[in-house]
Amino acid sequence: MKLLEDRILKDGVIKEGNVLKVDSFLNHQMDINLFNAMGKEFKRLFQDHSINKIVTIEASGIGIACIVAQHFNVPVVFAKKSESINLEGAVYSVPIESFTHNRTYNVIVSKKYIQPEDHVLIIDDFLANGCALEGLISIVHSAGATVEGIGIAIEKGFQNGGEIIRSKGIHLESLAIVESMNPETGTIIFR
Amino acid sequence: MKLLEDRILKDGVIKEGNVLKVDSFLNHQMDINLFNAMGKEFKRLFQDHSINKIVTIEASGIGIACIVAQHFNVPVVFAKKSESINLEGAVYSVPIESFTHNRTYNVIVSKKYIQPEDHVLIIDDFLANGCALEGLISIVHSAGATVEGIGIAIEKGFQNGGEIIRSKGIHLESLAIVESMNPETGTIIFR
Repeated sequence: MKLLEDRILKDGVIKEGNVLKVDSFLNHQMDINLFNAMGKEFKRLFQDHSINKIVTIEASGIGIACIVAQHFNVPVVFAKKSESINLEGAVYSVPIESFTHNRTYNVIVSKKYIQPEDHVLIIDDFLANGCALEGLISIVHSAGATVEGIGIAIEKGFQNGGEIIRSKGIHLESLAIVESMNPETGTIIFR
Repeated sequence: MKLLEDRILKDGVIKEGNVLKVDSFLNHQMDINLFNAMGKEFKRLFQDHSINKIVTIEASGIGIACIVAQHFNVPVVFAKKSESINLEGAVYSVPIESFTHNRTYNVIVSKKYIQPEDHVLIIDDFLANGCALEGLISIVHSAGATVEGIGIAIEKGFQNGGEIIRSKGIHLESLAIVESMNPETGTIIFR
């Protein structure tokens, strides 16, 4: 998606350790107009799928997922990263290793909000090693529901998450795939 | 706001310890159409204010803030609850006591994303004792920016947060104010 790639080139900052900072428009400050353009594109990319629910994970995925959901006219469920006293009762739970925070979270979704008849589009901001997505896929499958597709804003194509997810036969669409990036020159090459 | 009050009466669940569970439509599963109605109402309530940015706090505030932001055509900044390797550099930081999680978070916002010229609407899902809001107000003021108003989905009127915030002279609007609720009878009285 050229609009997103252009924005990454304009405002993204490459840091050591394969970190791409896009917090000026994607995951700290959020450009809602950009999110709407992304939602329109996801709707086009997944137009052949019947989707009745969007699932994402806190915190960075929530804003994108909510704006994208308007284009599908469906509710959003976000997976939570820590047990809350407000989230009692039966939950699906899976451990997820976080690349960004260098630790393991227990990610949970109330069983009430994913049902066997659900056809789910999973939305997230980043795909790197795919741990978060594998966790969400596992939760959707535990519910007996169907993963219709996965929509990602930015995929780090030089990490293996995309390959792992696509090898499962899941329809994965990333709006920008970073093939390589160089923190010294600031160069970003898209696939 | 009658639409929200009716939804709380229909789908809200009262638990011991002053807990009102609205996770079927507000803060786990999210009803985006309801959020849009809330955004329209906030736009009406704050029509006399010039607002160029919405600030919220992860995670439950993000979805509402993003949908509400469309009605103001402004970006959203969400305060983060834990230090991340991706959020380096100068940050505003404030400790916030969480009623829901019964612990204290360090809440941070990058200094880049709140500037002295900003006129901020703060959005959050719940107002109880007001600790989270006081933290966000403190961060906005630390940046030299202006708090134009605060928009809350559900205020627990029997806790003192609303009184504290209003006594500061801040324009606070809660779409539903719960005056009292009874976990035994399931009764909810709105102000």
